[in-house]
Amino acid sequence: MLQRAATQTLTEQLAARFAMRIRDRLMAPGSRLPSVRQCAALHAVSPSTVVAAYDHLLAQGLVEARRNRGFYVRDWAKKLHPAGAGSAQADSLSIASTDPAEARRLNAPISAATLMRGMFHSGGSDRPQPGMGVLPPEWLDNDFMAAALQRVSSGHGLRDATVRYGDPQGDPALRRALADRLAEQGIAAVPAQIVTTVGATQALDIVSRTLLKPGDTVMVEEPGWSVEFARLSALGMRLLPVPRGPDGPDLAVMARYCEAHAGTRDAPRLFVSVSVLHNPTGYSLSPASAHQLLKLAQRHDFYVVEDDTYHHLVPDHATRVSQLDGLQRTIYVSGFAKILAPAWRIGFLAAPPALVEPLLDTKLLTTLTTPALLERALAQCIESEQLQHHAERVRTRLALARARSVHHARAAGCRFVTDPAGLFGWVDTGVDTDALALRLLDVGYLLAPGALFHATRAPSTLMRINFASAQDGEFWRQFQQARDAMAKSA
Amino acid sequence: MLQRAATQTLTEQLAARFAMRIRDRLMAPGSRLPSVRQCAALHAVSPSTVVAAYDHLLAQGLVEARRNRGFYVRDWAKKLHPAGAGSAQADSLSIASTDPAEARRLNAPISAATLMRGMFHSGGSDRPQPGMGVLPPEWLDNDFMAAALQRVSSGHGLRDATVRYGDPQGDPALRRALADRLAEQGIAAVPAQIVTTVGATQALDIVSRTLLKPGDTVMVEEPGWSVEFARLSALGMRLLPVPRGPDGPDLAVMARYCEAHAGTRDAPRLFVSVSVLHNPTGYSLSPASAHQLLKLAQRHDFYVVEDDTYHHLVPDHATRVSQLDGLQRTIYVSGFAKILAPAWRIGFLAAPPALVEPLLDTKLLTTLTTPALLERALAQCIESEQLQHHAERVRTRLALARARSVHHARAAGCRFVTDPAGLFGWVDTGVDTDALALRLLDVGYLLAPGALFHATRAPSTLMRINFASAQDGEFWRQFQQARDAMAKSA
Repeated sequence: MLQRAATQTLTEQLAARFAMRIRDRLMAPGSRLPSVRQCAALHAVSPSTVVAAYDHLLAQGLVEARRNRGFYVRDWAKKLHPAGAGSAQADSLSIASTDPAEARRLNAPISAATLMRGMFHSGGSDRPQPGMGVLPPEWLDNDFMAAALQRVSSGHGLRDATVRYGDPQGDPALRRALADRLAEQGIAAVPAQIVTTVGATQALDIVSRTLLKPGDTVMVEEPGWSVEFARLSALGMRLLPVPRGPDGPDLAVMARYCEAHAGTRDAPRLFVSVSVLHNPTGYSLSPASAHQLLKLAQRHDFYVVEDDTYHHLVPDHATRVSQLDGLQRTIYVSGFAKILAPAWRIGFLAAPPALVEPLLDTKLLTTLTTPALLERALAQCIESEQLQHHAERVRTRLALARARSVHHARAAGCRFVTDPAGLFGWVDTGVDTDALALRLLDVGYLLAPGALFHATRAPSTLMRINFASAQDGEFWRQFQQARDAMAKSA
Repeated sequence: MLQRAATQTLTEQLAARFAMRIRDRLMAPGSRLPSVRQCAALHAVSPSTVVAAYDHLLAQGLVEARRNRGFYVRDWAKKLHPAGAGSAQADSLSIASTDPAEARRLNAPISAATLMRGMFHSGGSDRPQPGMGVLPPEWLDNDFMAAALQRVSSGHGLRDATVRYGDPQGDPALRRALADRLAEQGIAAVPAQIVTTVGATQALDIVSRTLLKPGDTVMVEEPGWSVEFARLSALGMRLLPVPRGPDGPDLAVMARYCEAHAGTRDAPRLFVSVSVLHNPTGYSLSPASAHQLLKLAQRHDFYVVEDDTYHHLVPDHATRVSQLDGLQRTIYVSGFAKILAPAWRIGFLAAPPALVEPLLDTKLLTTLTTPALLERALAQCIESEQLQHHAERVRTRLALARARSVHHARAAGCRFVTDPAGLFGWVDTGVDTDALALRLLDVGYLLAPGALFHATRAPSTLMRINFASAQDGEFWRQFQQARDAMAKSA
């Protein structure tokens, strides 16, 4: 909140707060600032203080005034090309589909970009952030990574992992360790089928760029993670949303898409799926669904990318499509950011043998190789089983956190749309979560509103909560206050 | 060569050699294996040994027989999509332009993919490789990187650079150090204008993906580095080649492109340029050319990406477009793979302030962040000036190597098309270098034939040599033998 005894004037404090939000994309380009009266009331300052703060922002080029309509966050996209020829790529993160209702989406308070920025600096707040997609840093603490890094850096190890590019497919020791781990999950893959990447993010990007051409059609799960939608859209792909149910994707919808476009340029070529602990629902695929999905993929000749980002948060025996398929038309993707070392950026893909070469070519085109030193250290953590023990501890801790968060959420009047599982809860708040998110931002909390998980960014009363960072009673009190205030003003 | 006293039969040895080449892409998909008679003569074995070896390859699925036409390397691209719907992306590395003469190019013996694979494992040969694009590993050796890594990993440093994603723009200490270095080169940039990347490769990829949409038109230098052509083509861009001269790009050609397409969808939106020590010619931009280029960019409203990959191999005072421009419509890109640590994969871009946010969004979409630990260690190497001293030593060593290589090349009858400078020599051999490359591959040397540096992959008598790895008299003897044999058989 603004502080009256601070070294900055109230005007400066207010302007600085808006400036930070705009720069951090916590307010999206094109969105309207609160009216002078609203803002004055909210922050308990005089209207003239607000006017002066808005003028500061105007001078900094962060907002623009529209006659009789108030102040709006300036649109970066417009400035991208001096003559205004404009590039659609500029606001790719805000664009979650090829649907034309962009204007409305650009006015959404919290975009995928916002949430991702929030993952890195949470708007100055030190509080646990229920909207985040990752475990809190202190959950990832361990001693074994430092020891592993020390070991691989000693002697000639460091030199070797520095002065040569290294194996473009990824460190051989890591690929062996990953193949062993996949075998334990029932997924048969030899090290030659594995390519390491800069996080699972790059793996998904490489797969899209290798298997698809701009204009190609991709089936995505809805709800789903909008950063994936944004990446595919930025690459020029057409997205076909497939409803995700408790057992798997809606196969009847997929079949209709495939049949409608069979034999044409628009026939879907790829299906992107989070089989296990799907984000945001927490759903996991049933063996029967996996089997039917593969039959459909076979019949209509499309590939499946199985994003197993959350695999350390479930026991090994959960069903993966890749397991049934034996990596024939499935590309398996996973990483370590959710369990161990987000900043090391290590992910991988395991692919059908015939796809390895073209996928590797794309990796070479986009980043050449990946840092071997960190990959070797990670290999040691896997081989020594330290990662697995750590993952077990995290699962136990998460189960406790989930129980507490579920209790809080229900006490606050939220309804779980899906059975609580894994890292995320998918809850109905009863009010528009875009508006709710803006209100909670003011008290230092970043939410993940439901609109973020829809390709068309439809308004929603749902939101995703992170069980690890939603245990805090204070958050739920603020949540209830904000929601009650909304209900009253409605 | 094949060994008669080996534990493997001659058939096995021959098959293994071809298999390795095919897997390493030293023989491109679609290319024809030597006829049985030719192969038998070349390796001094009986035709039946060759037939048996080719049958081995057939059994492994690496080659296919075409009735009465011999054996061909199987085309990975064809296998990419089971039903043969095929994806143009699959062989993106082989496709250097949108020109339709793909078939011929696919039969080229050495593609960009080949050369890049060669950077990683040089076909089993331990010899210095004159076709390589990097300095030999032993040139990069130093003690200070291990010390820097040790320092940043001690205490809480490692934890901090592991359990949090880190600043998406890149480690702040590295960005400060880079801003200081850019200032020394006369390029004014604050740390907030800098984004770190997974090598210069990712920086170029991010710029293309942010500023361009599939179908957009890009001007590229010719000759130029075909991996850049391949990346842009894979993204669906149209390439317009601009001849590169001693002082800079051919501005008259650029003006004609711009005028012809002015106001249309095809107006060039970007020009990708290596200003200093251009690859492969070694040319460096003159101040007058830089000024005219910027005027043209202003008039026709396109951006310039300045790829300064070789900046450590020249003194700081060389002219860069970014210097004159003050990063208004120039994006500066560079990295450290050529001087210090290829495997650390650290590059960066410095951009006009209004472009930083959209570029950062693309980085988030493609890899999220980059490994902070390695970035911090590199920052220390820069701040302590150890990198600069190391670069000075490398420049001195390279100058000596260049003198020796130039002497050898001239003695072998090569003519330098451009004045020798920097890392690469651009020489005329008098014979078709695609064919020459295939012959030298047989004796363990990987060449970079001139066709690799043309968007249309036109046959050429030119080749690029790496001065650091072309000092070897034995290479030049083999080179002369191969060339003389070609001249005789012609």
